[in-house]
Amino acid sequence: MKKLNMVIAQSGGPSMVINESLVGAVIEAKKSPAIGKILGARHGIVGILGNDYIDLRKPSAKKLEAIAETPSSALGSCRKKPDANDCRAIFERFRKLGVGYFFYIGGNDSADAARIVAEEAEKENYPLVVYHIPKTIDNDLRSCDHTPGFGSAARFVATAIMGDDLDNRALEGVKIDVIMGRDAGFLTAASALARRREDDAPHLIYLPEVPFSEEKFVKDVKAAMKKFGRCVCAVSEGIRGKDGVPIGAKLGSGEKDSHGNVQMSGSGALGDALAKLLKDKAGVKRVRADTFGYLQRSFPGIASKTDQAEARMAGVAAVRAALKGDLKKGTIAIVRESSKKYNVAFAPVPIADAAKYTRSVPKEFIAKNGRDVTDAFLEYARPIVGELPKCEIF
Amino acid sequence: MKKLNMVIAQSGGPSMVINESLVGAVIEAKKSPAIGKILGARHGIVGILGNDYIDLRKPSAKKLEAIAETPSSALGSCRKKPDANDCRAIFERFRKLGVGYFFYIGGNDSADAARIVAEEAEKENYPLVVYHIPKTIDNDLRSCDHTPGFGSAARFVATAIMGDDLDNRALEGVKIDVIMGRDAGFLTAASALARRREDDAPHLIYLPEVPFSEEKFVKDVKAAMKKFGRCVCAVSEGIRGKDGVPIGAKLGSGEKDSHGNVQMSGSGALGDALAKLLKDKAGVKRVRADTFGYLQRSFPGIASKTDQAEARMAGVAAVRAALKGDLKKGTIAIVRESSKKYNVAFAPVPIADAAKYTRSVPKEFIAKNGRDVTDAFLEYARPIVGELPKCEIF
Repeated sequence: MKKLNMVIAQSGGPSMVINESLVGAVIEAKKSPAIGKILGARHGIVGILGNDYIDLRKPSAKKLEAIAETPSSALGSCRKKPDANDCRAIFERFRKLGVGYFFYIGGNDSADAARIVAEEAEKENYPLVVYHIPKTIDNDLRSCDHTPGFGSAARFVATAIMGDDLDNRALEGVKIDVIMGRDAGFLTAASALARRREDDAPHLIYLPEVPFSEEKFVKDVKAAMKKFGRCVCAVSEGIRGKDGVPIGAKLGSGEKDSHGNVQMSGSGALGDALAKLLKDKAGVKRVRADTFGYLQRSFPGIASKTDQAEARMAGVAAVRAALKGDLKKGTIAIVRESSKKYNVAFAPVPIADAAKYTRSVPKEFIAKNGRDVTDAFLEYARPIVGELPKCEIF
Repeated sequence: MKKLNMVIAQSGGPSMVINESLVGAVIEAKKSPAIGKILGARHGIVGILGNDYIDLRKPSAKKLEAIAETPSSALGSCRKKPDANDCRAIFERFRKLGVGYFFYIGGNDSADAARIVAEEAEKENYPLVVYHIPKTIDNDLRSCDHTPGFGSAARFVATAIMGDDLDNRALEGVKIDVIMGRDAGFLTAASALARRREDDAPHLIYLPEVPFSEEKFVKDVKAAMKKFGRCVCAVSEGIRGKDGVPIGAKLGSGEKDSHGNVQMSGSGALGDALAKLLKDKAGVKRVRADTFGYLQRSFPGIASKTDQAEARMAGVAAVRAALKGDLKKGTIAIVRESSKKYNVAFAPVPIADAAKYTRSVPKEFIAKNGRDVTDAFLEYARPIVGELPKCEIF
């Protein structure tokens, strides 16, 4: 049996468990007699084009486990969308290196990049098995019940909101927390997991899936202030008005990546604008805004154990599927097997199922009033996020 | 022996361990035959004026321990500076309630409030033992080697910077992290504890103690980008130019509390302004800014164990000192006993030692280049902050 070499890389925004997927794939690949070299490309496709590799057979098992526990993309990441020319350059390099397997860990844009590579390989008659391994804190891949990375980011968000609720109880006023999620509000919705008591935060939740109205926002906050004497709002960075244009993008720098995504994170502009609105229009004296920012995806030591285990298995499953030849170009779908006892399966499906288009928070997860989530969402999210710290009040 | 009742309250910004001090004081007070009722005033002096109390003899030992573990001020907080009229109103209420002991947990403004109450009590011939119990994440009380609350907030900051370093390694560019500390840069300095490797973040550290120059900042970042190919900056929210006016305050809402402090936290304005400066002047394409905000003081589940134990002991020590009559109006100084083996003592000292004026980061903790800390600072801070998560890279 002629051994084929494999290349694995990471792409898009980092997560707390993306290295679990990497390590899962590497350990599984090491077991196979069909795989020769295991090469990690630095910074995704950019590293492939630049011949920048790490030999992933070298690190000890102990080192690999330590990498798996570490947040952010250990191989480095990129946000590059390859075109046909890039692909030809990739195959030229792959041919020289004897690469027959290519694994790309990332979100929907990364799945799309992998799809392009796979389709171009077919056109160019380059024999390549391509597998996308799902990852995104946004939880917006259409192919997955939920995505590796989401559970841990959601755990950060829910924990942060628990703490912020206590802070807001102490000093009162309105607190606005801006949470990641360009197009999908899953992470913002996860803030609701922080609730234990009836008056616990978040008191208002705004998702990108519900058109945002400044007028309604001011009214909602006034009502919450009347009811609770204070108010904590969980706001998605992706909230958009009736015109569909994200409000944060209008306020931001206008910077775009090669997939056409406008910068939203890494700026406090949206939170500050909403705080100003409330001071001016709702007559609230003390309004503070925090943008949780990159901590949501990279804070060490607080990952969800379920999320870690599933991210590991997604990597393992991709290598197994690629070796079995289940599909020549695939991704791993995470399927919830039963709604009663939490259990998931990892199934190979066509890569196009994950690529490009995103999944939104479904209607049954959004409260009818448009400013909260349903119990169905909480039941969906709880096992993925795992246990949260206990917080006691008088 | 005639029993006297006691009132305890919390004031100023919450911390992760301020409830340890509360619970320490309550448990110690319960042991004394000299103390009758143990009343917790809600929202500091505001609760005293409004007769809003919790009976702190009621909660079970288990409940008290759960409260101690919970971040933020369980009794609620305020930022009120009492005047002579307020004090007369306080004594009127205290007289009716038979209050002979008053404990106020907080930072330098809260110490000042306690000092005012103590001095007015003397003027009014109201027999009151007043003790301030130190708390502030800013670590800026002149009476303490370090303050309860600092170690845990510093642990959050150092952990966040570790994660952010990994995120910045993955996607590169410049990352600006704005850290709390109105006048003192201790918390920003603590970001340096995140370093394990020579190229680890933070690459640049800006404290309020060193006049900030935009020109020098741009130059520093360019040099770091050249050296590391990326750059993570830890910037204090309190940085100020040569004129001594905090840059964040100029950009902010101008809102002031009754101690005269201008709002700085709860806004992303400083980070965004610095990011814009770098895009315009340093020619860096990818610049992101996060403001760590209130998470620094209220994130559940990640407190420093040393900080928790010391906060508890500060509460215990205040009650012991008050009962012994060591001082009639005092605060608890935390004294480091030896520079070799970490060990602290809790000593009663005059309340004026902690009140009003703040302590800055001393010269021996600031690197000569003005953009880093010294090893002496790291040795000082390490035992207070405790162990950090391990992060591995290839």
